[in-house]
Amino acid sequence: MSGLFNPAVVLLSGGLDSSVLLHHVAHDLNRRPVYAISYDYGQRHARELECARWQAEAAGAAQHRIIDMTCLGPMLKGGTALVEGGSEIPDLDTLDDAQRAQPPTYVPNRNMMLLAIAAAYAEAQGVQEVFYGAQAQDEYGYWDCTTDFVTRLNHTLALNRERPVRIQAPFVETSKAGIVRRGVELGVAFARTWSCYRGAARACGRCPTCVERLHAFEEAGIADPLPYE
Amino acid sequence: MSGLFNPAVVLLSGGLDSSVLLHHVAHDLNRRPVYAISYDYGQRHARELECARWQAEAAGAAQHRIIDMTCLGPMLKGGTALVEGGSEIPDLDTLDDAQRAQPPTYVPNRNMMLLAIAAAYAEAQGVQEVFYGAQAQDEYGYWDCTTDFVTRLNHTLALNRERPVRIQAPFVETSKAGIVRRGVELGVAFARTWSCYRGAARACGRCPTCVERLHAFEEAGIADPLPYE
Repeated sequence: MSGLFNPAVVLLSGGLDSSVLLHHVAHDLNRRPVYAISYDYGQRHARELECARWQAEAAGAAQHRIIDMTCLGPMLKGGTALVEGGSEIPDLDTLDDAQRAQPPTYVPNRNMMLLAIAAAYAEAQGVQEVFYGAQAQDEYGYWDCTTDFVTRLNHTLALNRERPVRIQAPFVETSKAGIVRRGVELGVAFARTWSCYRGAARACGRCPTCVERLHAFEEAGIADPLPYE
Repeated sequence: MSGLFNPAVVLLSGGLDSSVLLHHVAHDLNRRPVYAISYDYGQRHARELECARWQAEAAGAAQHRIIDMTCLGPMLKGGTALVEGGSEIPDLDTLDDAQRAQPPTYVPNRNMMLLAIAAAYAEAQGVQEVFYGAQAQDEYGYWDCTTDFVTRLNHTLALNRERPVRIQAPFVETSKAGIVRRGVELGVAFARTWSCYRGAARACGRCPTCVERLHAFEEAGIADPLPYE
């Protein structure tokens, strides 16, 4: 986290974690410019992309790219509930222990795909660091949100002979409540972040990410400004 | 390489190495079905994709997907000569030693991107193995064609808690001449493989991949049926 005017690429879904992360990175005056990158992979909750656009502007990102990866949706729908045409989004309280280890909302190898593309983009621009918003509570269900995952991926990227890119996940050991608190410090507009996997007009309050988000705000002692069903 | 009816995903560029690889994998009667996957990332030599289509059919692949990643071209053109709008493709004999370690035709983090997507596709379909055509002579210029790269990427993918996918690179220690010889054994139609980075009507014979291809055929004692300038 040191260095003068180190540019950074930030993976920005438009959800709570990555929006706070973007402001966290942009807040560091040594990190300039900040490039935000989002992906349209046919997710049901595409309205998170509108939030991403809003947050990129609010954080003063020098650039915000939304990469069109909608062609991946049909390829992946057999393996996840998260894209159009996939299975139903489950309520968190219906998941058994085995499902919690890799829930239906897991997208096959998603983070390696997104980080590999972000690293390519960074490298092409001479940027050495890519930030993503993995946090401690994602560990329960997503192998690609763990410290081990980041370490091993960096071990692979380190083979690059000229311009190795490093993945940074500064929240990987922070609880979601901790992220909410950091967002408060940074003045993040939580009403402009979207989490609900179901992607309807109001957040459902029952899918895994809604439940986690509501718990996190409760634990942080702050009201979530999003409208819920 | 064992197992009854293990399906496989094969990365198929339409070049010499991956075309021989596809036939090599499809030749193993225990590997069924074989899914071929190609990428359109705005490469200058998009005619390799026509060859990919032809080879997928010739090898009896159950499916051939061409993933549209043309949106990546503009993002990457600052870092490579290989996409439209990038720098000029150099002749191999103009490259100095530093350039040979990571030549202008290197595409930032390309193989991690392509393999990450192929692994996601495999996982979504319940396929456990992804094959790609890294070969020994690519090691000189491409960190993402090395045994270390494959080992470290597999170490990362092994964290998957339910359906870990494994990358296989059976030619990673084979010379390009050895691949030509394997192609002869398998009856691969070399005239339907495309290598030249310049992508004109005839192969240039001077860019890095043309020079390597011509050497490989010469070493194997076989005529390359492609028309050269």
